[in-house]
Amino acid sequence: MKGFKFNGIKAGIKKKDVMDFGIIFSEKPATAAALFTQNKVVAAPVILGRERIKAGVCQAVVVNSGNANCFTGKKGVKDAEQTAALTAHALHIAPELVMVASTGVIGAPLPMDRVEKAIPDLVDTMEPDRVDAFATAILTTDTTAKISTRECRVKGGRFTITGVAKGSGMIKPNMATMLSFVVTDLDISSILLQSCLKKACDRSFNRICVDGDTSTNDTVIALANGMSKAVLEDSDDSIEFQRCLDEVLLELSRMVVRDGEGATKLVKIQVEGAATPEDALKIAETVAQSNLVKTAVYGEDPNWGRIIAAAGRSGAAMEPDTVDLRFGDVFLVKDGTWQGTAAEVEAAKVMQDKEIEIVLDLKMGQGRDWYLFCDFSEEYVKINADYRS
Amino acid sequence: MKGFKFNGIKAGIKKKDVMDFGIIFSEKPATAAALFTQNKVVAAPVILGRERIKAGVCQAVVVNSGNANCFTGKKGVKDAEQTAALTAHALHIAPELVMVASTGVIGAPLPMDRVEKAIPDLVDTMEPDRVDAFATAILTTDTTAKISTRECRVKGGRFTITGVAKGSGMIKPNMATMLSFVVTDLDISSILLQSCLKKACDRSFNRICVDGDTSTNDTVIALANGMSKAVLEDSDDSIEFQRCLDEVLLELSRMVVRDGEGATKLVKIQVEGAATPEDALKIAETVAQSNLVKTAVYGEDPNWGRIIAAAGRSGAAMEPDTVDLRFGDVFLVKDGTWQGTAAEVEAAKVMQDKEIEIVLDLKMGQGRDWYLFCDFSEEYVKINADYRS
Repeated sequence: MKGFKFNGIKAGIKKKDVMDFGIIFSEKPATAAALFTQNKVVAAPVILGRERIKAGVCQAVVVNSGNANCFTGKKGVKDAEQTAALTAHALHIAPELVMVASTGVIGAPLPMDRVEKAIPDLVDTMEPDRVDAFATAILTTDTTAKISTRECRVKGGRFTITGVAKGSGMIKPNMATMLSFVVTDLDISSILLQSCLKKACDRSFNRICVDGDTSTNDTVIALANGMSKAVLEDSDDSIEFQRCLDEVLLELSRMVVRDGEGATKLVKIQVEGAATPEDALKIAETVAQSNLVKTAVYGEDPNWGRIIAAAGRSGAAMEPDTVDLRFGDVFLVKDGTWQGTAAEVEAAKVMQDKEIEIVLDLKMGQGRDWYLFCDFSEEYVKINADYRS
Repeated sequence: MKGFKFNGIKAGIKKKDVMDFGIIFSEKPATAAALFTQNKVVAAPVILGRERIKAGVCQAVVVNSGNANCFTGKKGVKDAEQTAALTAHALHIAPELVMVASTGVIGAPLPMDRVEKAIPDLVDTMEPDRVDAFATAILTTDTTAKISTRECRVKGGRFTITGVAKGSGMIKPNMATMLSFVVTDLDISSILLQSCLKKACDRSFNRICVDGDTSTNDTVIALANGMSKAVLEDSDDSIEFQRCLDEVLLELSRMVVRDGEGATKLVKIQVEGAATPEDALKIAETVAQSNLVKTAVYGEDPNWGRIIAAAGRSGAAMEPDTVDLRFGDVFLVKDGTWQGTAAEVEAAKVMQDKEIEIVLDLKMGQGRDWYLFCDFSEEYVKINADYRS
């Protein structure tokens, strides 16, 4: 990856003595695209980011964990601006070229004294190979850092895409996810980058669910600095770039779900044969969000009745008498008929896997869509009953 | 209560040796009203019930727990019809005067040999004072029977309303709840009874949430046999009947939420000052369904940020800078400003109560609405991971 540096350090923003402050820096101003949360309540960095992304250019992104800088009023926006300004000063670049992202507890003011004190160190110790440190510094309840890289080749040259994400709870993104940062040394316009990012998010972060809650801080930022000299020469090249970007974001999405708070299993619900694509999505989303489905998965119980019931309340058209439902390769329902106890015993074996595919075929039309979700364990309750204490 | 008999017995439908078969019988054919689930997948008794309620008259309701008779195809509908026919035969009444309701596991056939064997005993030992036995026989994961009674007086005379409900999980009713049965000895038309029942449900069962899942078997049936000789003489009388019916259903709703699977607390979210009544309901519903809010309540954490975030993703209009939020009498947010650590310490004390009121005032308009919900504990996960095993 040409021309990008990363860093992650301890700034004392979190109570625990762990890394909580990170930066991505491009040697040249980069083409930029971003997606933000659709929540009506948005964090200060999102307010600032929505303004700054309009220029389509960005050179550095500063991220803190441990404090969401959300519901912090005008002071919160000033703090975000000040964080960007101090970083820009240390980097000797214009303040408008710096974007900010935050994640953590809602409602507490950002400890600006610690932020200010940490910025020189953050900038001074950046390195091209410190992406791991960055990916670690942005985590909250996550148990693992999430990085995905693809080496890509188009007619116009070779380039690299690296994506980083954090997210473990409050995950049911709407047009964006918790926090994710994608950098590439491809030469690409901000308009095309924005369009590709939107499509890739719709096929990744917008198809995952941990707990059905949408964060106030969800942000995805993509930076392309063109330093590989690779360009997209024709529509085939664009398609190849989209394919690589999709892969990176989908891999990150799977990492987020697999690391869902208290999760022990990753499940894909695939809906086929819905009357419309919208109906397919409605059903996939409703199944992925059902606490009863998620607890049954945790209990390794092929409780197909809960999946049928969730589909039935989704609002989508459905004829119970025609549906097929299978867990892996095991059909539990065929043409609306339960396949008996022996099939349940087989399906129970499928449920013991760490990754499970459930396929519901409505046989009504061509609509198909999917969702990734995790199971729901006592551990999720423990984590979220105790999060602030 | 004049002219009603009840019963509950053990029929061997449940694996455990407990009561699982119940009946309500009116000495005279009663005016009847009913509401059913809006789930697209509906149980056989709901298919039968929707047909039979059209006549507006009913004399007996037979209910089993332990088996939902749902997703059981044509045989399921035949089994429901057969259950009604056998009961009618034992009661010496027309089969069309019997309605059926079922609750329990989805997908397994109803054990008709046991049902058939139990009916004579169920009918022979009915008594006016066995409403407790009936209320117990219809339970599944519930820990307590749920009965509410009001003695009412209108210009046209005195009468009684008794309501019974079951429900503990899969609770986010849509136009109806799990199972509830209301009987009165008032003389009232089926059209007015249906209208009053609909209104009362909208103010009770349609404002509660345990886990956000909607059952395939949700049914509320009201029977009025007129044997008190009381009638509604004018609109004041109708209003008084509505008030009494509302009270009975609201009390039952509170019992259902309090007995929510794994629940330790009952919470009311009251939304004030929304732009529209629809917006108020959207916010109340979204807060009540948020797993993050529910786990915070379980942890006795006044985590107001999660309430604000849930309101923000509800789709309702909202200006974060103007809102007030209080837990009981303790304001945590005033005019969009956090009230500080001292306020949080006070709010944490409020959270220790068994019943908690949370009030969110948006100051945008006149829209107001509310929802009742319970907290979310490890116990919910345990119950639902193990339900079928």
